[in-house]
Amino acid sequence: MTDNGAGTAGFPGSSRAVGPSGHGEFEHILVKREGDTVTVTMNRAARRNSLTEDHLRELLTALREIGETDATGVVLAGDGPVLSAGHDFGDVAARDLSGVRELLTVCTDLMRTIHSMPQVVLARVHGLATAAGCQLVASCDLAVAAESAGFALPGGKGGWFCHTPAVPVARSIGRKRLMEMALTGDPIDAATALDWGLVNRVVPDDDLDDAVAELLGRATRGSRASKALGKQTLYAQLDRPEDDAYAIAMEVMASASQLPGAREGMAAFLEKRPPEWPD
Amino acid sequence: MTDNGAGTAGFPGSSRAVGPSGHGEFEHILVKREGDTVTVTMNRAARRNSLTEDHLRELLTALREIGETDATGVVLAGDGPVLSAGHDFGDVAARDLSGVRELLTVCTDLMRTIHSMPQVVLARVHGLATAAGCQLVASCDLAVAAESAGFALPGGKGGWFCHTPAVPVARSIGRKRLMEMALTGDPIDAATALDWGLVNRVVPDDDLDDAVAELLGRATRGSRASKALGKQTLYAQLDRPEDDAYAIAMEVMASASQLPGAREGMAAFLEKRPPEWPD
Amino acid sequence: MTDNGAGTAGFPGSSRAVGPSGHGEFEHILVKREGDTVTVTMNRAARRNSLTEDHLRELLTALREIGETDATGVVLAGDGPVLSAGHDFGDVAARDLSGVRELLTVCTDLMRTIHSMPQVVLARVHGLATAAGCQLVASCDLAVAAESAGFALPGGKGGWFCHTPAVPVARSIGRKRLMEMALTGDPIDAATALDWGLVNRVVPDDDLDDAVAELLGRATRGSRASKALGKQTLYAQLDRPEDDAYAIAMEVMASASQLPGAREGMAAFLEKRPPEWPD
Repeated sequence: MTDNGAGTAGFPGSSRAVGPSGHGEFEHILVKREGDTVTVTMNRAARRNSLTEDHLRELLTALREIGETDATGVVLAGDGPVLSAGHDFGDVAARDLSGVRELLTVCTDLMRTIHSMPQVVLARVHGLATAAGCQLVASCDLAVAAESAGFALPGGKGGWFCHTPAVPVARSIGRKRLMEMALTGDPIDAATALDWGLVNRVVPDDDLDDAVAELLGRATRGSRASKALGKQTLYAQLDRPEDDAYAIAMEVMASASQLPGAREGMAAFLEKRPPEWPD
Repeated sequence: MTDNGAGTAGFPGSSRAVGPSGHGEFEHILVKREGDTVTVTMNRAARRNSLTEDHLRELLTALREIGETDATGVVLAGDGPVLSAGHDFGDVAARDLSGVRELLTVCTDLMRTIHSMPQVVLARVHGLATAAGCQLVASCDLAVAAESAGFALPGGKGGWFCHTPAVPVARSIGRKRLMEMALTGDPIDAATALDWGLVNRVVPDDDLDDAVAELLGRATRGSRASKALGKQTLYAQLDRPEDDAYAIAMEVMASASQLPGAREGMAAFLEKRPPEWPD
Repeated sequence: MTDNGAGTAGFPGSSRAVGPSGHGEFEHILVKREGDTVTVTMNRAARRNSLTEDHLRELLTALREIGETDATGVVLAGDGPVLSAGHDFGDVAARDLSGVRELLTVCTDLMRTIHSMPQVVLARVHGLATAAGCQLVASCDLAVAAESAGFALPGGKGGWFCHTPAVPVARSIGRKRLMEMALTGDPIDAATALDWGLVNRVVPDDDLDDAVAELLGRATRGSRASKALGKQTLYAQLDRPEDDAYAIAMEVMASASQLPGAREGMAAFLEKRPPEWPD
């Protein structure tokens, strides 16, 4: 592990949260950097990594801090039998409307931060991902699942429908499939998630870490600044009428052509030499 | 069949259209309630269940009346060799612009009512579903097809393009697949419809009713009020930029946390007992 | 080859670009009409059909001129080992911001023209389609690929991200799959492109022309004016909230019912005779 942090904000030179040891001061999550990749592991196995407000705030803080660093990739993982069981009813049941709005605001900020941070964020899905846990997977840029993983929006068979988890799930799979997941509440297996486009890879459980590293490696090559702008612009243009999307993407692409990464990439190609990314 | 209608509007205590006998006063459709499920069967087999304005108005009236009842699920089915052949050219050919607008307004209202009514609506596709018939399938929340079913937007090979049927079909399958269906006008078979996400299940013809009951049963569990709000919110947030979708879904989810269904669901979970849905 | 051009603008009676000989005055492309189909072939094999501004302007001019003719279908093809390598870095590297905006404006106009022109446009993908080359395939109404074809958005592993190519690719495949293509920059093979909905058919390389002709033949039947309005309305209603899409599609469908093509189609159906399309 090399010291990539010189001159960048917060990480690994930061004194809090995400230290050079690879572990921060968090209670519910583990944060570890190896090379250019930071792995954030939900570590409340006894509570099935359910997402209390404190847990969500730690994830949000960690991702924001990582966003300030020069890391290129983030793996979002979970310890224990499941990836995450979603919101912790023990943390929700006593809240009034204002309290639940606060909780969901933090949760939605977390999902938005995954999209806006410059790193490629990949979900490592080793077990069941439920409700807001499934939302996390759908919100990550990429996802690799073990064969034994599963995915569910269980609110549909209970009393509190998975309204917000359905937002990114709807944008990953087709409408009829969304309706089936949301209305039945029943889990789909990893093979179905792959077929429907909710995850990018399904591998035997023992191969999960290798597959995560392989895909993340390919997804984090090239100019870091170019990739960050690319990812952020993708989310900006999605789900819009095509003319609106072009209005966004064309201006960004024109501006990006003047940035050092693009200049170097084109020069290296034309000079038939390997590029040296300036960022 | 139990009397679930006490205190609810229109059904089965209503004196018209959808009576306790399970059959209404309709000419073109049959409406039958069994338990919590109402089956609406298009019954113009000799006209291939083509959708005249009268036929559409009966479907619209029936669904609106069912929407006022405490039924939890609706099966939309058809009698005869096909599910529906779409608009009846005999009913369209003589109309002027104003007349066709009137016809299409009723048709679009029917599709919107399927989305806005509180029940889960499942299409039982036993045969070919064509043009506005295919639109009906795409508009239903869920769809189960027999292996011998087929789906087509035939306007593309004729003189009146399937502009409005393509609206919900486009939102269920990919763009290139939409273009192929809409431009060629040729039918796709049930297996292709499943692969493309237009239907949720394909089963041998003889198993169709079992599969319909099985999926609808799973899709109608839980709190009825929570499910209705969930379904309506799904349609509200689809096809929007993600931030707009979250703005809708987050407010609904926060408010929904205060409703009796959510309270009971969380309490039952925390107290490790089966829930008793209040609605 | 029959003279279908009598009384129509520009083609084949036009003196420039797309003459009755089937070949125009273009430098970078070949334009050939056979029957009702015009094949536009990118012909810069030595430069892997990379898209300089001159090349893009020729494609744009050719498609606009074809759009004025009574042709019913267009095949977009490429000569040489690949379909197209996308923008030519030799043409981009020296441009300032204003120059790149100009280049991308022409490129985006080309993509929009494919959607707005009345003909069905089908991409014949015999080899690799990269960056703006992949954007071309995604922008065509239909696409048929040879088994040895491939598709990539390689900017993601370089310095100039494929912002604009991702616009139509995002609208053909799922979000996670878009992210994988855009972030890794690696190619997908033809079978994957078919599975993800980026192309309509994959056939053995030797069967490519037959498959192109077969699908285009089915996609160009019927009333030419009805089909053109249909295609244009499809693109207008996509990617919008469903109510907005219905507002567009319903008005068009009502108006279209009064046009000669619809009148003839319905009359022929009701009179059980073959239609004679008036346009």
